[in-house]
Amino acid sequence: MNSNFSCKTCASADQKLETFISNLSVDTSHHRMEGQSVKCGFGLQGICCRLCSNGPCRITPDGPKGVCGATADTMVARNFLRAVSAGSGCYIHIVENTALMLKKTAASKGVLKGKVALAKLAEIFEINEADEHVCAEKIADMVLADLYKPDYIKMELVEKMAYKPRFDRWKELGILPGGAKSEVFSGVVKTSTNLNSDPVDMYLNCLKLGISTGLYGLTLTNLLNDVMLGEPSIRLAPVGLRVIDTDYINIMITGHQHSIFSYLQDRLIQDDVIEKAKAVGAKGFKLVGCTCVGQDLQLRGEHYKEVFNGHAGNNFTSEAILATGAIDAVLSEFNCTLPGIEPICDELKIKQICLDDVSKKANAEMKPFVFEEKESQSNEIIDAVIESYQARRGVVALNMDADHGNDDTLTGVSEGSLKSFLGGTWKPLIDLIVKGEIKGIAGVVGCSSLTAGGHDVLTVNLVKELIAKDILVLSAGCSSGGLENVGLMSPSAASLAGPKLRAVCESLGIPPVLNFGPCLAIGRLELVATELAEAIGVDLPQLPLVLSAPQWLEEQALADGAFGLALGLPLHLGLPPFVTGSPVAVQVFTQDMLNLTGGQLIIDDNAKSAAETLDAIIEKKRKELNI
Amino acid sequence: MNSNFSCKTCASADQKLETFISNLSVDTSHHRMEGQSVKCGFGLQGICCRLCSNGPCRITPDGPKGVCGATADTMVARNFLRAVSAGSGCYIHIVENTALMLKKTAASKGVLKGKVALAKLAEIFEINEADEHVCAEKIADMVLADLYKPDYIKMELVEKMAYKPRFDRWKELGILPGGAKSEVFSGVVKTSTNLNSDPVDMYLNCLKLGISTGLYGLTLTNLLNDVMLGEPSIRLAPVGLRVIDTDYINIMITGHQHSIFSYLQDRLIQDDVIEKAKAVGAKGFKLVGCTCVGQDLQLRGEHYKEVFNGHAGNNFTSEAILATGAIDAVLSEFNCTLPGIEPICDELKIKQICLDDVSKKANAEMKPFVFEEKESQSNEIIDAVIESYQARRGVVALNMDADHGNDDTLTGVSEGSLKSFLGGTWKPLIDLIVKGEIKGIAGVVGCSSLTAGGHDVLTVNLVKELIAKDILVLSAGCSSGGLENVGLMSPSAASLAGPKLRAVCESLGIPPVLNFGPCLAIGRLELVATELAEAIGVDLPQLPLVLSAPQWLEEQALADGAFGLALGLPLHLGLPPFVTGSPVAVQVFTQDMLNLTGGQLIIDDNAKSAAETLDAIIEKKRKELNI
Repeated sequence: MNSNFSCKTCASADQKLETFISNLSVDTSHHRMEGQSVKCGFGLQGICCRLCSNGPCRITPDGPKGVCGATADTMVARNFLRAVSAGSGCYIHIVENTALMLKKTAASKGVLKGKVALAKLAEIFEINEADEHVCAEKIADMVLADLYKPDYIKMELVEKMAYKPRFDRWKELGILPGGAKSEVFSGVVKTSTNLNSDPVDMYLNCLKLGISTGLYGLTLTNLLNDVMLGEPSIRLAPVGLRVIDTDYINIMITGHQHSIFSYLQDRLIQDDVIEKAKAVGAKGFKLVGCTCVGQDLQLRGEHYKEVFNGHAGNNFTSEAILATGAIDAVLSEFNCTLPGIEPICDELKIKQICLDDVSKKANAEMKPFVFEEKESQSNEIIDAVIESYQARRGVVALNMDADHGNDDTLTGVSEGSLKSFLGGTWKPLIDLIVKGEIKGIAGVVGCSSLTAGGHDVLTVNLVKELIAKDILVLSAGCSSGGLENVGLMSPSAASLAGPKLRAVCESLGIPPVLNFGPCLAIGRLELVATELAEAIGVDLPQLPLVLSAPQWLEEQALADGAFGLALGLPLHLGLPPFVTGSPVAVQVFTQDMLNLTGGQLIIDDNAKSAAETLDAIIEKKRKELNI
Repeated sequence: MNSNFSCKTCASADQKLETFISNLSVDTSHHRMEGQSVKCGFGLQGICCRLCSNGPCRITPDGPKGVCGATADTMVARNFLRAVSAGSGCYIHIVENTALMLKKTAASKGVLKGKVALAKLAEIFEINEADEHVCAEKIADMVLADLYKPDYIKMELVEKMAYKPRFDRWKELGILPGGAKSEVFSGVVKTSTNLNSDPVDMYLNCLKLGISTGLYGLTLTNLLNDVMLGEPSIRLAPVGLRVIDTDYINIMITGHQHSIFSYLQDRLIQDDVIEKAKAVGAKGFKLVGCTCVGQDLQLRGEHYKEVFNGHAGNNFTSEAILATGAIDAVLSEFNCTLPGIEPICDELKIKQICLDDVSKKANAEMKPFVFEEKESQSNEIIDAVIESYQARRGVVALNMDADHGNDDTLTGVSEGSLKSFLGGTWKPLIDLIVKGEIKGIAGVVGCSSLTAGGHDVLTVNLVKELIAKDILVLSAGCSSGGLENVGLMSPSAASLAGPKLRAVCESLGIPPVLNFGPCLAIGRLELVATELAEAIGVDLPQLPLVLSAPQWLEEQALADGAFGLALGLPLHLGLPPFVTGSPVAVQVFTQDMLNLTGGQLIIDDNAKSAAETLDAIIEKKRKELNI
């Protein structure tokens, strides 16, 4: 045990998880919060700059500017744009790999499970091609061509993907993105020392990155994955630590690039592989979902019943999942793979393999996924995992008594499955909104963090407040992981909703919080919002729809947020994104944005008052729509 | 005057400049050092992380890891790789624009002034094409094609450009770069939250970025510019504030993208434009050099005698240049354009125009350069500058009595002009080294900063120590700006050299410090080193050659440094690049690097001891070569 091991863990909205973690003898992020409880005020406000060797500089009464002359406004904007650029880069990396995977799958005449998604993309992209493989390859090529354009050439799919009133506004504002990879590149260059110092220019640049992030990194990633992996369909599924079955060889997966696991996933349930497992005393292999790639598997779980046992938890549950002792290997291909898992894997003899070099963990084996070698790579992985199983089971103690999670989380909600559920039209939902049975919709999205009260505390409390006000909640991201583990996505959670929403939920047999899965599915929420707006004949900012990323954690969440603001939606955050040291930032995000895009940032770490603010916005939008 | 205006300015190696600045009533970076003198120890050591909302986290005895579990080693490596990625991005942005400019210049049958450079590039790129415009366009296309490759496809020109023993070593190490823009993109992604945590992987990645930065951002930018703007040729030229002629309308230029000024530069000396100047009472227009683009103009000054009056000073001289009152406009297109110039421009009514949106200054007019509109854009700029001249001259006081700089700085040194000077062969230089008349060569490069004793203090003191030990100094970057202004690049500086080097310099009529110009010309030093190594038949790490960036300032300098280490050269820095909080970083840079590439990092802010260390390395290398 580390000598700095803290016995005090932070709170979690998930009581059983909190108890489980507080009893662990391994160090987790929940333990480390205490040692990091004293925060740097300069960092929190974004008024620290360490770009050059004259620094670090900090804004103080004695030093109102950095040595170079950078003001608080410039420092904050540079830091923020760089973070948004990095966050955008993460999502663009994901869509690039996903498009490449589709291209290679199509070129090699692989199975394409999502026929509806393929047809939908062909229609959006205006591809008239009967052969599904040729069609899929053309789709992938169009995405890749856009991603690799220079930043001075606009991407072609933006106009095809975006809702027209939004596209027109973005064009007016001059924020239509050029090639998405070059935009990330330029955002980073712009924020280097003694380059851009104009905060407003930099915030407009953030919106541009938000658009490329949203339409490509989020929306297209989902749709491309749907083509390869199959479309989501609604069902009830188990969640939490209970999904781990100790009779199997268990592989925890983390990351955001589901298609990287696609071949392995199918392979794990083939007879020869199951025989290998049986030969060492296990019943077979199971994938245990963690972070967003687990959420994505859960979303498509209908297609993967045999290999996938369920989603165990979000990013800050990953250490606890390992601490059950029942995980034999971790396969990771992206964030949010905490470095905190590394010593736990060492201690519990858990094999770690990284499938993408951007996410190489310090003590893991690196095996970057190569499409052409997927057969041999999968066999090597299987053998390594079996070896790990043999070396650790019986030696490492199991800790499986938490009785954590539930068996009836409603999963598989997407823009497609929800519309099908409603009878193939949005009219029933629109009618419920018009009649006031559902007052409005809140997308509660993004990450899980340990701040704002503790693990998922603000997220869960805010959602409870919102549903009590008859606001339907749609969730995507690690937020979903927290919400489902505490039962808010089980049909029985209808009892926590306000009387009108409760009645709607009970009549339909659904929970008041709908689970769209991974953070990538924020792109699905955008599709739902756009389809609703189109059906009603209004622009997005007119909808009684709000966004909240109560516990945003990473730079990716900031890029998502920029997308939300570009869409013109009100966006609540529980914690400010390191910008409060800049009067210009505060003015732009909380006031000027309304005139720019219609969007607005609301910062509030109090669930009750934040819910009241969001409720008031929904009421105002209802009034303006005369409903 | 700002209420926080400090009356105490930092020291400068340039006494006249220090006096000039200390008497100013405007706030400059030299004044702001005092208010920023208390530094954050976490930032200095690189052990602060603000990537996510659980942070900022800092490594302390109570918090030996970040909340996510990131160790000091992971934090430092992430911060460092992100800085190198950004720095590389800056240079790759420059070479991309330069290649585009060459492509468009060639396609429009524009003037190509550098025939030797064109032939050299055609040979390296293996292009057999008689038409110079077609040849130039092919060259540009090959560069652009490489820059836009994905990171998983290696760039093709690396093998053509690199010295074979180096290329082979890089291949062994797996650090040959893919498409340079994608490499920057991936470096940024890799350093995001909960992605890569392996410090060694990240430092190898830095070397990869160093290679693409060096061969493309540095070396190729020079050669492409040579084709368009003409090759450097050696001459004596004036430097310092004295180059400003108040009889003219003066435009200060800052940045790194010389070709953006190319058309305007020629236009300013055409009769109709001179007439416009005369109509408002000036004799005409003059460009006043500042930062690296000024150094580049100075380097090629032989071709631009009429429009260019000389290089006034480096980045931290820019505020002083404006404070003379004799500058009527600032045209900027990249860093190092300090935000500190903004209030001075406001106060002294100086027009600011930014020609590249990545470098938009907060209060400047934005006019991104468009090749196809260069005629109309130049006319608009000329009119705006005349308007500024009329509005401010006579109203704003002049402050021109500094008697700063000198008239006999040797400029125009390049790999080509130096070899010509030596009679078209490196043999005379090699003979001098073999005989010990020149003990070795030190490339003293990179930025100017206000740390390590003050403005250019360590740079100037180190160079004095080195030449006193008979080590010939080659300089490139803002370091050159400081060295020339204090007279170390004047032939009379030979008297400061050791007896052997002094005799060599006096017999040739050259100074002991040779001025290669902008930081981009670090690429020219690489060519010199490679040609020397080739001539002797050894690999680069065997040469009695050391590098020093005594006062590195920016992220770009870190990318340059990574190139130096990839080349296998010893690299001295005056200040550590925010890595000392990581034992792994210190081990990799100061020890392990010797086995990886032959390179080695030396940190020392003492001129005397640093010079002794570098001298000992040179002596050791001489011994190993049996000379």
